[in-house]
Amino acid sequence: MIQCNYERMEDKIKTFSRFGDTGKGGITRFSLSDEALAARKEFVKRMEAIGASIVTDDMANIYATIAGTEDLPAIVSGSHMDSVRQGGNYDGILGVLTAMEVAETIVKEKIPHRHPITVIVWTNEEGARFEPAMMSSGVICGKFNKETMLASKAKDIPGYTFREALEKSGFKGKEENRLDPSKTKALVELHIEQGPVLEAEGIDIGVVEGVCGMINYEFTFTGQAGHAGTTPMKYRKDALYAAVKTIQYLHDELDKLDSKLVYTTGKISAHPNIHTIIPDEVKFTLDARHQDSEVIKQVLEVIKKIPSVVEQCEVNYEEAWARKTVSFTTELVDYVEFSAQECGYSNRRIYSGPGHDAQFAIDFVPTTMIFVPSVGGHSHCEIEYTPVESCLKGANVLLNTILHIDEN
Amino acid sequence: MIQCNYERMEDKIKTFSRFGDTGKGGITRFSLSDEALAARKEFVKRMEAIGASIVTDDMANIYATIAGTEDLPAIVSGSHMDSVRQGGNYDGILGVLTAMEVAETIVKEKIPHRHPITVIVWTNEEGARFEPAMMSSGVICGKFNKETMLASKAKDIPGYTFREALEKSGFKGKEENRLDPSKTKALVELHIEQGPVLEAEGIDIGVVEGVCGMINYEFTFTGQAGHAGTTPMKYRKDALYAAVKTIQYLHDELDKLDSKLVYTTGKISAHPNIHTIIPDEVKFTLDARHQDSEVIKQVLEVIKKIPSVVEQCEVNYEEAWARKTVSFTTELVDYVEFSAQECGYSNRRIYSGPGHDAQFAIDFVPTTMIFVPSVGGHSHCEIEYTPVESCLKGANVLLNTILHIDEN
Repeated sequence: MIQCNYERMEDKIKTFSRFGDTGKGGITRFSLSDEALAARKEFVKRMEAIGASIVTDDMANIYATIAGTEDLPAIVSGSHMDSVRQGGNYDGILGVLTAMEVAETIVKEKIPHRHPITVIVWTNEEGARFEPAMMSSGVICGKFNKETMLASKAKDIPGYTFREALEKSGFKGKEENRLDPSKTKALVELHIEQGPVLEAEGIDIGVVEGVCGMINYEFTFTGQAGHAGTTPMKYRKDALYAAVKTIQYLHDELDKLDSKLVYTTGKISAHPNIHTIIPDEVKFTLDARHQDSEVIKQVLEVIKKIPSVVEQCEVNYEEAWARKTVSFTTELVDYVEFSAQECGYSNRRIYSGPGHDAQFAIDFVPTTMIFVPSVGGHSHCEIEYTPVESCLKGANVLLNTILHIDEN
Repeated sequence: MIQCNYERMEDKIKTFSRFGDTGKGGITRFSLSDEALAARKEFVKRMEAIGASIVTDDMANIYATIAGTEDLPAIVSGSHMDSVRQGGNYDGILGVLTAMEVAETIVKEKIPHRHPITVIVWTNEEGARFEPAMMSSGVICGKFNKETMLASKAKDIPGYTFREALEKSGFKGKEENRLDPSKTKALVELHIEQGPVLEAEGIDIGVVEGVCGMINYEFTFTGQAGHAGTTPMKYRKDALYAAVKTIQYLHDELDKLDSKLVYTTGKISAHPNIHTIIPDEVKFTLDARHQDSEVIKQVLEVIKKIPSVVEQCEVNYEEAWARKTVSFTTELVDYVEFSAQECGYSNRRIYSGPGHDAQFAIDFVPTTMIFVPSVGGHSHCEIEYTPVESCLKGANVLLNTILHIDEN
């Protein structure tokens, strides 16, 4: 069986780790930043070197295509190159690097293929500099309004818009170059798991069935500010203590639901947040995800049972955002599983917790994903790590999946 | 019995409420801000109008003195004019306004007094713009290093130091003008209670015996960041949940101690504070106050029983600051009580929970304080309120206290 090349895979990972290197093991490579543009140029240089033709669309998504032997729709694979602040060297970029390695293997090994094979680089998946996340896939798959996205303001430069970054990038192309369902046979995105399951279970490959449904709620507790030194406990309306009791309630109740449910309070703020003042307003978020919408409904029931007054503080909450469970194309999911088995790699079916560009693409073209393990489950941080061996296994599964799609 | 004047008292409160008016019932009057300087100029104008001589010291504390009939040490009264952000119209400023009203009454009614009477305005009591609180009284009473204080950076203007604000203010005077124990007979500071006790008990005057001892601890919980969508609950090291459990533990245990104990978690922060990331670091504060040092020791025992690992997160804590209970000068406390009784006002002995400039002065000169009620116990907020009647009662007690000190 033809396989991808270890040294080339390692070289790709090392080379791209330099673009935005924080010096602490990770990268900060915001979308369309100088570091991201340097990575894009390296991508183009390397893809041109193996004979790919390059186009970009109006959202600066890059398509590097090696021709097939027949005039057929393309098989597309790739991911994104941008990172969060002090992110890691695998989230997103590994999906691009493995797709590059697959293309390079096909070219160097002269593997016959009927369909064109396109390596895609999505612009601004993280939304770390310009909100929202998955901006460009969202625009071209009809989820987001393009003009609104162009007006998105950079978090690091006051007044600087995504539109300006796009114009300045040198990567803005024509709308007609966008991913086109009529010219696309399938899209396969490889990604690190960003969680600990595959590693903990000693499994090589995650056969991704879909992306978990989720809800995100924001809670607000309104109490009464008062001086820490003068207000007897019985007279207090302590918004922070009300929030603490509610977080504990949520843990107690949500732990009774299905064990695959994950829920997180990641964000909390207190006002005025001064050590000598009883907080009069506290906000926190609750993110909850499960592949089964029935479980998400149970979460909502738990939320609805929160009293309107807790510890004499008023409680309010609202849905900040939500998404339904996305299921990938069954046939493609089966190809991934079959390819992993062919390669002799341990594998299991898994749902993705985080969102990916692929979840927008699925409405548009047949789509699936491949996961490789994340050591320690770490992601969005500098210690994010997947050994080259694991990356190579992912590339081999991607290669075989693409070849199976090509055959059928 | 000679009394202060209602209309004049009301006029003073209304006039000074304009300096830093937020338009929502309160003020933002950071120390040495333009608003605070305007208030200082009004103070100087009014004090000069009643014949006071004005000096300032090297920390911009203002001393406005009306001469006595003998060459004796001064009786000093006053407070501060700065506020927290969106603070009220009574905290601090009322101690200045009542002292002004007492001086004006003495002058206008030609009340004979042997000692000079000085109205003092302390600079930067709140520490809301330049930390720490009680900065200038701390410097001149030898608690704080002056150079360190001058280097304190403004929270609202990057790089702007207290030294620059002081130089620019026009109120910086000579070190030789500082409050001098050899030239000071007593210091009496009137203040709002900043708590609900006097109002709840229907009492006019708080005869302040001292300032409660307190401790302030900062807790840090260290967990592991992880993606909200991928990390199964059992693998998590959620620093926020560890903090929540600990806050609940503190409430459960501290509620078993003496009912006069007050404790507060006013400040909390989570890192990275993103709704989709499990927090890897959470910090919160615990402020606890009681007049009896034995109760404070019991609080420390509760803190020491916190396990070093909670919910798989490492727990660390340290004392941020502490103060022992401060007792005011017995003779002066008795004068306040006697004056309140003479005026026919209900009164009770009380300990101050918050700190005041007076607590530093007590090491230096004979000192006491007078409290008037705070409606609803509100303080450090825009709805902070004390009716003019109550302010006037406070001024009358202050007047009589000063006259009794003068006689003895």
